[in-house]
Amino acid sequence: MNYRFANRMLGMQTSPLRENAKKNMEESEVISFAYGFPPTEAFPMATLQEISQKIYTEVDPQILLQYGATEGYPLLRKLIKERLETINALKNDEEIMVVSGSTQAMDVAVKVLCNEGDIVLCEEMTFSGAVNAIKGYGAIPKEVPMNIEEESVDLEALEELLRMDSNHRIKMLYLIPTFQNPLGTSIPLEKRKAIYQLSKKYDVVIFEDDPYGDLLYEGDPIPKIKEMDTDGRVIYAGSFSKILAPSTRLGFVMAPDELLEKMILAKQVSDSHSNFYWQVMLAEFMQHHNFEEHVDFLKALYKEKLTTMMAGLDSLAQDKISYIKPTGGYFICCKLDNSIDMENFYQFLEEDKVVVIPGNIMSVNGKGYEHYIRLNFTKPTIEEIEIGIARLGTAIEKAAVKEVYRAS
Amino acid sequence: MNYRFANRMLGMQTSPLRENAKKNMEESEVISFAYGFPPTEAFPMATLQEISQKIYTEVDPQILLQYGATEGYPLLRKLIKERLETINALKNDEEIMVVSGSTQAMDVAVKVLCNEGDIVLCEEMTFSGAVNAIKGYGAIPKEVPMNIEEESVDLEALEELLRMDSNHRIKMLYLIPTFQNPLGTSIPLEKRKAIYQLSKKYDVVIFEDDPYGDLLYEGDPIPKIKEMDTDGRVIYAGSFSKILAPSTRLGFVMAPDELLEKMILAKQVSDSHSNFYWQVMLAEFMQHHNFEEHVDFLKALYKEKLTTMMAGLDSLAQDKISYIKPTGGYFICCKLDNSIDMENFYQFLEEDKVVVIPGNIMSVNGKGYEHYIRLNFTKPTIEEIEIGIARLGTAIEKAAVKEVYRAS
Repeated sequence: MNYRFANRMLGMQTSPLRENAKKNMEESEVISFAYGFPPTEAFPMATLQEISQKIYTEVDPQILLQYGATEGYPLLRKLIKERLETINALKNDEEIMVVSGSTQAMDVAVKVLCNEGDIVLCEEMTFSGAVNAIKGYGAIPKEVPMNIEEESVDLEALEELLRMDSNHRIKMLYLIPTFQNPLGTSIPLEKRKAIYQLSKKYDVVIFEDDPYGDLLYEGDPIPKIKEMDTDGRVIYAGSFSKILAPSTRLGFVMAPDELLEKMILAKQVSDSHSNFYWQVMLAEFMQHHNFEEHVDFLKALYKEKLTTMMAGLDSLAQDKISYIKPTGGYFICCKLDNSIDMENFYQFLEEDKVVVIPGNIMSVNGKGYEHYIRLNFTKPTIEEIEIGIARLGTAIEKAAVKEVYRAS
Repeated sequence: MNYRFANRMLGMQTSPLRENAKKNMEESEVISFAYGFPPTEAFPMATLQEISQKIYTEVDPQILLQYGATEGYPLLRKLIKERLETINALKNDEEIMVVSGSTQAMDVAVKVLCNEGDIVLCEEMTFSGAVNAIKGYGAIPKEVPMNIEEESVDLEALEELLRMDSNHRIKMLYLIPTFQNPLGTSIPLEKRKAIYQLSKKYDVVIFEDDPYGDLLYEGDPIPKIKEMDTDGRVIYAGSFSKILAPSTRLGFVMAPDELLEKMILAKQVSDSHSNFYWQVMLAEFMQHHNFEEHVDFLKALYKEKLTTMMAGLDSLAQDKISYIKPTGGYFICCKLDNSIDMENFYQFLEEDKVVVIPGNIMSVNGKGYEHYIRLNFTKPTIEEIEIGIARLGTAIEKAAVKEVYRAS
């Protein structure tokens, strides 16, 4: 038997989740900056336990446990819409669908919009799950060169790609504009406006993936691209994995009616609907249990961790490691100087029991980011951050090669 | 914008779930035999409430609420495997993956096995969700003629289809062998063996969908096709929608290693993993809260409802309505005599506020089953069954046309 899907997915990374579980088992003393997980203290255990008691007596079992509508629990959809308006300043007439994590939003968007051989443009470094969703339908993820210093895709390069696409094979532009994964950067407002104008000019859909958007630690929020969407070409996806709990698989997607209806069909075929018990739990949390206080608690928790990690990084040799300060989210992405021998660096890091994500794993075409590493600062403790970053500095020093390398 | 997925799905039925919700709202006195739902009394509320308390204190939050492995919670996977061996006599070395309802098992199987234009053979009448999953990937569902009296696909017709498939476009045979949806029939053992031999001879994969398999009310269970699978060509999918609660979206799939690995990748890309909180809940239920007693309770509950419905049907005019007695599951499928004017029948039924599923909705090519109706007996109460079947009889009598119709 010949598995066609498998051929498309050749080279797909082994599940980091399973690798991580394995690593955790083998070496509990490892300090991991690798995966984008929340820490245990981020889970609102007492509140969840309290709600989980009363819903069995206060909520109609036909809502809690029966089959439900594919687009989700009406009350939760209403509350998410209201939250988008009041907290995220995202107000329009479009409907939303509840999905099983924002990963599923991307999966159904590709299913609806792309045929085999169609192209989805992505930031050069991006979330590998989205890249795999694209490949899974035989579509082609194509990287847009980035201007990392400017925290954006290169606008000229983007326009050039769109202009050259005479057969209109480019169906979508996938972006994580806010607290990008893996870069931690945020596209500035003026560039968001320019990107939106290009999407209009060349008639492509923008998929704005925003799983970290709530986690702003410093400064003012930048308006979302979806806010500028006057002609219904932006799909906006949010997630509760980072502000409730990943295991519940709850996210949502907002899109113009015509497109959302197709996405609802695609989800219906795939898993009927997302877990309704948790949709009720979340609605109850949002309505009666100070959900925003919980989000504020997370922001304070992660801000301290981010500050600690940046202080650690700032104490390392500035000629050998640099990074752009994130104002929110989950990640710092560091660039090591080209003089660093990366093979040696990873070996020293492994000996010192520190795990990071190599840049090329997050690179759409698997190369070009040898000297980048992604660091997660939410899951490790403050102490682990302090110790781990010091060890990182040691590994860099040891791997710094004296010979002068060709400039990049 | 041109939505390709939508073109494939043209003619897809509106979600019965949403239609049902609408109907329920509009007319609460309607008696519905339409949808395959469990009744409220099927939900083990007290047990779930009890478990939902203790897991917050007894289970590691990193298991309960964190990201988890795509293939599922290891303890639950082990318990499901053990249950398959002890309760369902299905013992082999293959692994299982937890999925978000058995619908998702079919979705990822089609994604892995089929390219656009490939063919999946289906029983002539079957679960529309599976048909839509096939269409969603641009594959083609093709009906195998049935011999309903023999409770099976027509074996000669099946072999003819396989023999004529010189380009090997037929990748899979989708079957619900036990308590079929919509027919309520079960393929006899000898025919299961013959079907398996044909799948070997012509090298196709069998997808054995078994969401109702636990709900046996009379006689001995028939061995599953998966039990005969000596060379790893049967994908076996089970579900907890019917024996725990649909809203939790928990099912599982068993397949040979090489194939299961691809299906795990396909699921990872789609929704990362199924809700872990509910995987823990179910594992705890199975391990410490007499899960099999709950299943036995359901079987007694539904057996009484089935018996009541059959008694009602048997009291109707036998020359105008006939059916094959199910020995388990959720549905009875009735054939009305060809002399019945079906348009009139549905109009009388509507006036009498009774809802059923017309046969053609469950027909792969949307025709040929005008005179069949599917009746669900699990959701309505005993009283609703008695009243509803009497009204059904009245509608049949009123719609019986005197003129002699051409024999079918």
